[in-house]
Amino acid sequence: MSTAEETDGENTPWSEVTPEAARRLLVAAVDAFAERGYHATTTRDIAGRAGMSPAALYIHFKTKEELLHRISRIGHDRALTLLESAADGEGSATERLDGAVRAFVRWHAERHTTARVVQYELDALAEEHRTEIVELRRRSDAAVRRIIGEGVAAGEFDVSDVPGTALAVLSLCIDVARWFNAQGSRTPDEVGELYAGLVLRMVAAGR
Amino acid sequence: MSTAEETDGENTPWSEVTPEAARRLLVAAVDAFAERGYHATTTRDIAGRAGMSPAALYIHFKTKEELLHRISRIGHDRALTLLESAADGEGSATERLDGAVRAFVRWHAERHTTARVVQYELDALAEEHRTEIVELRRRSDAAVRRIIGEGVAAGEFDVSDVPGTALAVLSLCIDVARWFNAQGSRTPDEVGELYAGLVLRMVAAGR
Repeated sequence: MSTAEETDGENTPWSEVTPEAARRLLVAAVDAFAERGYHATTTRDIAGRAGMSPAALYIHFKTKEELLHRISRIGHDRALTLLESAADGEGSATERLDGAVRAFVRWHAERHTTARVVQYELDALAEEHRTEIVELRRRSDAAVRRIIGEGVAAGEFDVSDVPGTALAVLSLCIDVARWFNAQGSRTPDEVGELYAGLVLRMVAAGR
Repeated sequence: MSTAEETDGENTPWSEVTPEAARRLLVAAVDAFAERGYHATTTRDIAGRAGMSPAALYIHFKTKEELLHRISRIGHDRALTLLESAADGEGSATERLDGAVRAFVRWHAERHTTARVVQYELDALAEEHRTEIVELRRRSDAAVRRIIGEGVAAGEFDVSDVPGTALAVLSLCIDVARWFNAQGSRTPDEVGELYAGLVLRMVAAGR
């Protein structure tokens, strides 16, 4: 399921990972972590899924945690780029919030297996890695708060609790990774469109 | 963390489970599954956490899957009861949707450790148990759709995609289990109030 998913995105996922053997191990790790959980997965399982020996894995990743950290870092970097691009983009706050939600939903739908690992295995990261990831999440939150705050300041939105509303908007989009099913009746873009409409209502855009 | 959580609810959680040894095992299983994942947890781990021998565990639960099924069944029964009570209750659709969201959010916040296991370990259930749980989830969805549909019919709400909006409402509430932190700045009731307000905007109540 997820191996197919990994090649479906509009950009080639994991293209930032080289050499190809390391990329193959990362894709195998995502599949294994999503299927069995981080703690139930061994580096031997991951090497086996990638058609490699454990010794070959260690050339690229010293520990299982290093694999998780790499996955989490790439996923969080991507999320932050999407949200900051939307926040910094052209257009009104309404247009930018609409774009942020569509992009964030699409990522969580198209890359739902990766997103589940990224979102649900934070506790398994080593402390210094967790600190780094938490900082990326803080900046993602800030990007959404900024769009909403600017919409309020411009008189486009009517929101009394900006941090709480930003939290809810991100949470709504993130949970797409849990329920989205590639065999289901809605495409990632359709979910993005539905959700962008609901979020614009949450901030009372255009009322 | 979660053991404390389990005694914090307004009703005594797991009170439907008897005898006390079985209840103790269930609480231990929730903690272990939440911390390490279902597949990384052994019945020996669970018995140990409960201060019991593996042999004593087998008197109450024949397999690890039976423990997960019991947890999942109780959690889903509770969710369904909350949502159907709200749907069948007195008052306008606006009042009933408000009540449903507050109750559903409160459950996912107060019982966040249990809710994570209930929501994230569905794939680990045996097929016949999964079928049973999927049916409970279908009925929960239906309760929320019914409230929204009745609100539209009564002219209280303006919603073009009732199933999609119901899905989003449930998803928003469920994801509280992922991010809610008992040490955080918002109480379960405060999150419920915020979310009820956002959901009523999603359905354009009172516009």
